[in-house]
Amino acid sequence: MAAHEADAEEAAKAGGKVTITEIARQAGVSVPTVSRVVNGRSDVSPSTRARVEDLLRRHGYRKRPAAAGTRAALLDLVFNDLDSPWAVEIIRGVEEVAHAAGVGTVVSAIHGRTGDAREWMRNLRARASDGVILVTSALEPVLHEELRILGVPLVVVDPAGSPALDVPTIGAANWSGGMAATEHLLALGHRRIALIAGPPRLLCSRARYDGYRAALEGAGVTVDDTLVVPGDFHPESGFKGCNALLDLPQPPTAVFAASDQMALGAIEALRRRGLRVPEDMSVVGFDDLPEVRWSAPPLTTVRQPLADMGKLAVRTALKLARDEQPDSPRVELGTELVVRASTAPPT
Amino acid sequence: MAAHEADAEEAAKAGGKVTITEIARQAGVSVPTVSRVVNGRSDVSPSTRARVEDLLRRHGYRKRPAAAGTRAALLDLVFNDLDSPWAVEIIRGVEEVAHAAGVGTVVSAIHGRTGDAREWMRNLRARASDGVILVTSALEPVLHEELRILGVPLVVVDPAGSPALDVPTIGAANWSGGMAATEHLLALGHRRIALIAGPPRLLCSRARYDGYRAALEGAGVTVDDTLVVPGDFHPESGFKGCNALLDLPQPPTAVFAASDQMALGAIEALRRRGLRVPEDMSVVGFDDLPEVRWSAPPLTTVRQPLADMGKLAVRTALKLARDEQPDSPRVELGTELVVRASTAPPT
Repeated sequence: MAAHEADAEEAAKAGGKVTITEIARQAGVSVPTVSRVVNGRSDVSPSTRARVEDLLRRHGYRKRPAAAGTRAALLDLVFNDLDSPWAVEIIRGVEEVAHAAGVGTVVSAIHGRTGDAREWMRNLRARASDGVILVTSALEPVLHEELRILGVPLVVVDPAGSPALDVPTIGAANWSGGMAATEHLLALGHRRIALIAGPPRLLCSRARYDGYRAALEGAGVTVDDTLVVPGDFHPESGFKGCNALLDLPQPPTAVFAASDQMALGAIEALRRRGLRVPEDMSVVGFDDLPEVRWSAPPLTTVRQPLADMGKLAVRTALKLARDEQPDSPRVELGTELVVRASTAPPT
Repeated sequence: MAAHEADAEEAAKAGGKVTITEIARQAGVSVPTVSRVVNGRSDVSPSTRARVEDLLRRHGYRKRPAAAGTRAALLDLVFNDLDSPWAVEIIRGVEEVAHAAGVGTVVSAIHGRTGDAREWMRNLRARASDGVILVTSALEPVLHEELRILGVPLVVVDPAGSPALDVPTIGAANWSGGMAATEHLLALGHRRIALIAGPPRLLCSRARYDGYRAALEGAGVTVDDTLVVPGDFHPESGFKGCNALLDLPQPPTAVFAASDQMALGAIEALRRRGLRVPEDMSVVGFDDLPEVRWSAPPLTTVRQPLADMGKLAVRTALKLARDEQPDSPRVELGTELVVRASTAPPT
């Protein structure tokens, strides 16, 4: 038995569950073949790999973390899409900390498609990885399981929904941010405050919406559901949402858009009708992307520490790769209201 | 002699220059040690590595391209900084083609700093790479040489200056773009057309400036040097440059900013003075970043095919990795004027 096979065998025994020999017997393959699957090598036929992985899963087999000498020196940063300036902020934070740790950052987009996610996993298997940071996205359970079998730790940034209990998550204080944006408008004297909301399937959208409601209720303002319009975080939806609000019999005097990009779309809708920001309508965004300091007018928004979220994700993944536990499995970094020129008292 | 040492030996002989054995003798180390340096392994002391690499360089030793089976399944995409939405456009294009080829994209920022570049190279050596795509940046000659020794192909996107003759470059048609932007303003009837220029050390800045001049001269308009102000592509410099232009005894009626971000800064300078775009001043940008469709007003600009440049860079790097030559060592992809709402005839 070669050295790496002996390691795998020992790892299996340490897990107290099942040995590689037993898996090999049940799969009808050799011990070295099982070892190749466990070590993520690509020279195994897909059908054999599937059979062996299925047995590994069923027996709850877990590989021991790799020894320090066998680090891949790579971290995987996986987005759904690379179509927003939002992404570059996260990449910047991740790259900075990974670079300082001598680790390269592999950036991938899986477009929410099973095929792309599997292709990414094939690539990861071909070259190994010290950890995966998943941004506002989800993996199929089978890929999640495969990472576990490969011993590659997973961290989720800005979780889309409630993630598996054993996966650490790093988000922003979305509820507090939604509340701060709305309280700012209330403090200026606004009472008819609209919300262009994010996609309801995302936890962050729900949290911002709840913060908006909490602020209104805290100020004794009745929530008017006609002032809440749907959006998808992209500018087009802010444009459309703002137009819908302006077509109401009694339009709002202020709009809280749950993303900066929707806020820019809203400002354009106002501009096309000859309405001025903030004189005719106040607009607050969410994210504080670098470019909204240069929107016309510069945008009042809720700063989401995207780069810091990326940095913490790397630190967490590298901790897990060293078989240490993160300080907390659920972290929310603080958000902060940044007041610029797009908000003013109602006239 | 182990198999990989024999390979290296044969490669050296094929190069017709010097054998590994000779390098080992001169360095006073064993043949396996030289082989480890050649193959980019990390288990060699830094001083030994430096001595061996120095000899390899002096003898012009070049490793043969790796066989298909030993691909790293990784490409390196290296920026100076990840501080602009510009970067995400390139990343998107690179990732798309690399992903389809089963290759991961390692994104790094070296901040124009020697230390960061060397740290990146250490990381690359620890994990191997099928190719390096360098964006608007330069490497020290010693790192350039090291890539050559490692047999890792290099492609430069948007070359900063005149790159080494043996490095393929992919740029945009900057001169034509500068001309198209200026001709558009001339066609609208403008004669006093200002330029907020890019950093003079960058080739792309010079090409845009020359295109601006060529259009003016072609229309029989005398170039007025007081209408050309310096910028660095960032919004702040567009803001400052536009203010300088507005303070002239005879301000321009139109501004061509050599980047979208500077155009946004210029629009903000105008807004602060109560001037309207395009009624009081026309503004044209350069890049066509996704967000300028949503600037107020939507920006007329020159589209630079950033994602396509990234895609072509990957195809070129993968060709070189297969030891094929690119179709052309110097490629410029076309730029295109996109007319939106920030330009109009002078009033």
